[in-house]
Amino acid sequence: MATSIKDVAREAGVSIATVSRVLNDIDVVNEDTKKRVTDAIKMLKYRPNIVARSLKTQRTKTIGILIPDISSQFYPEIVRGAEDVSNIYDYNVILCNSDFDPEKEKEYLRVLSEKMVDGIIYMSSSLNEEILELITELNIRTVLVETKDEKGTLPSVTIDNVSAVYDGTKYLIEKGIKKLAFIGVEENAKNAWGDRFAGFKKAVEESGLSLDEDLMHFDSLKVKAGFDGVVKFVESKKEFDGIVCASDEIAMGVINELRERNINVPDDVSVIGFNNNFTASIFYPKITTISQPSYDMGSVAMRMLIKMLNKKELEQEHYVLDYEIIKRNSTK
Amino acid sequence: MATSIKDVAREAGVSIATVSRVLNDIDVVNEDTKKRVTDAIKMLKYRPNIVARSLKTQRTKTIGILIPDISSQFYPEIVRGAEDVSNIYDYNVILCNSDFDPEKEKEYLRVLSEKMVDGIIYMSSSLNEEILELITELNIRTVLVETKDEKGTLPSVTIDNVSAVYDGTKYLIEKGIKKLAFIGVEENAKNAWGDRFAGFKKAVEESGLSLDEDLMHFDSLKVKAGFDGVVKFVESKKEFDGIVCASDEIAMGVINELRERNINVPDDVSVIGFNNNFTASIFYPKITTISQPSYDMGSVAMRMLIKMLNKKELEQEHYVLDYEIIKRNSTK
Repeated sequence: MATSIKDVAREAGVSIATVSRVLNDIDVVNEDTKKRVTDAIKMLKYRPNIVARSLKTQRTKTIGILIPDISSQFYPEIVRGAEDVSNIYDYNVILCNSDFDPEKEKEYLRVLSEKMVDGIIYMSSSLNEEILELITELNIRTVLVETKDEKGTLPSVTIDNVSAVYDGTKYLIEKGIKKLAFIGVEENAKNAWGDRFAGFKKAVEESGLSLDEDLMHFDSLKVKAGFDGVVKFVESKKEFDGIVCASDEIAMGVINELRERNINVPDDVSVIGFNNNFTASIFYPKITTISQPSYDMGSVAMRMLIKMLNKKELEQEHYVLDYEIIKRNSTK
Repeated sequence: MATSIKDVAREAGVSIATVSRVLNDIDVVNEDTKKRVTDAIKMLKYRPNIVARSLKTQRTKTIGILIPDISSQFYPEIVRGAEDVSNIYDYNVILCNSDFDPEKEKEYLRVLSEKMVDGIIYMSSSLNEEILELITELNIRTVLVETKDEKGTLPSVTIDNVSAVYDGTKYLIEKGIKKLAFIGVEENAKNAWGDRFAGFKKAVEESGLSLDEDLMHFDSLKVKAGFDGVVKFVESKKEFDGIVCASDEIAMGVINELRERNINVPDDVSVIGFNNNFTASIFYPKITTISQPSYDMGSVAMRMLIKMLNKKELEQEHYVLDYEIIKRNSTK
């Protein structure tokens, strides 16, 4: 039989209400009594029933994390950053994989609300009006990561994807690259990924170079998009000496397909990736890429959320973290 | 204001107790009344307070997953497999990163118990007597994944690591490799990782080849162990024509360091990895490796756990899943 709050009260010679006040940190108990209670708790190895307490306090010390897919390369670091911070503040995280499916997301949001999570960290390019309304209706505090909410009603942690790929593309142009290709996601995707093409377009146009539809391939962020893009470019017979990729996975596909065709990276074609995955630094050749601070995105988001839960003011509603161009061997 | 069970009772014209019986699937309500209640639930969009219900039923429909580190290459697939199955059965998962730290594991186990998780999936090479005792004391149903419990008291899902690396090593020997090196974790680690060396040793000894301490490097499963191992082997001036690696990360480090030294893979040295990570198939050269069914390990473990929670008999207490040698270009 587990030790109950009654046992603690008896041992300390105080009322149950007093033990409860000590447990809930309500500062009306004198130091002497408090010590008697904490000693009794230690001696009896009493652990309060968190679930029962949650019903009273309406707080479960649990945070929901909604991401597209933990098994894809980008999310584990973010989740780790978020979980580390939650652990420091005695929170736990419930992990939900949504596969970008709005229906699955809505169901998860409802279940998380029923399970009385204190807050949610939300990541997905499928954030639409309906999901935003549901978040408002359920009244759960939510922080967005790498996700756009056009009206800016929810706090967020992002990087500036337009300017990141703009800088990455400019870097290639400064190295003398003139015939640039792009592989990624369409601009009208209206999310972080679509922004990457916007940055590419801006840099190419500003530099007086031309955008060529035959040298753009819109698909996904996966390795296969890299393979397919190179096949398309080569078959178009257009010349190209640089490929800007919206992910490191794409860059890996690109480099492998170019190697198959005896096209040298970086001598014939420079390739830049995005994200700075673990593998980008050990790939052959080592991949030049735009690093986004995944771990920090998760940890900053969790810190914001916990501040909100503690009713503390946020210094900023929208954190835009720094990116960095990591220069390696896949570019001249 | 959210709809309460009272509103449902009023709408259906029944008592609160009757609504509760319908919600908890207690079969004493006649079909007619049941329909009135479910209609009222639908109309009022009533969602029961899961937390309050958890206190009564002593079930939270939540599973704890304790892993070393979600941001390392091996665990995301397992977690995804587990979460997918939990989602099918209306469970959620709480994710905990233990960093192989027994103290952190014990604290997580206690918190998960206080949060009344229904069960736990546990993965870590640090499973010791003390942690086993705590699991027993807390009385939480637990399934081990890729983790050894010497006494076999807890159900588990593993692969046979000894036989997997034995087969992998034999594969190299059959290809004519005679001077074999190994990089991984020491045998006396007494876990899945230590077993990999045991498999290597067995294959080498059985084949009448010699084990050379200068051609063994014991460290971690990380890329750096691969670099360091090659440095050690080369500096020993011993000849080697094959390296068996206890992880794909090690194999990647090995291949890069050999390339730096103009040693050709596979012409001069054959390299085999372990796990079949996403990157093994797109590395240059593509890495021959022993594939373990990570996603299945997670999903089988979750299925076992949910069966146990539903008091159904397990067909097997210890699932040993199949591995497979994936032949690619890093071996002759």
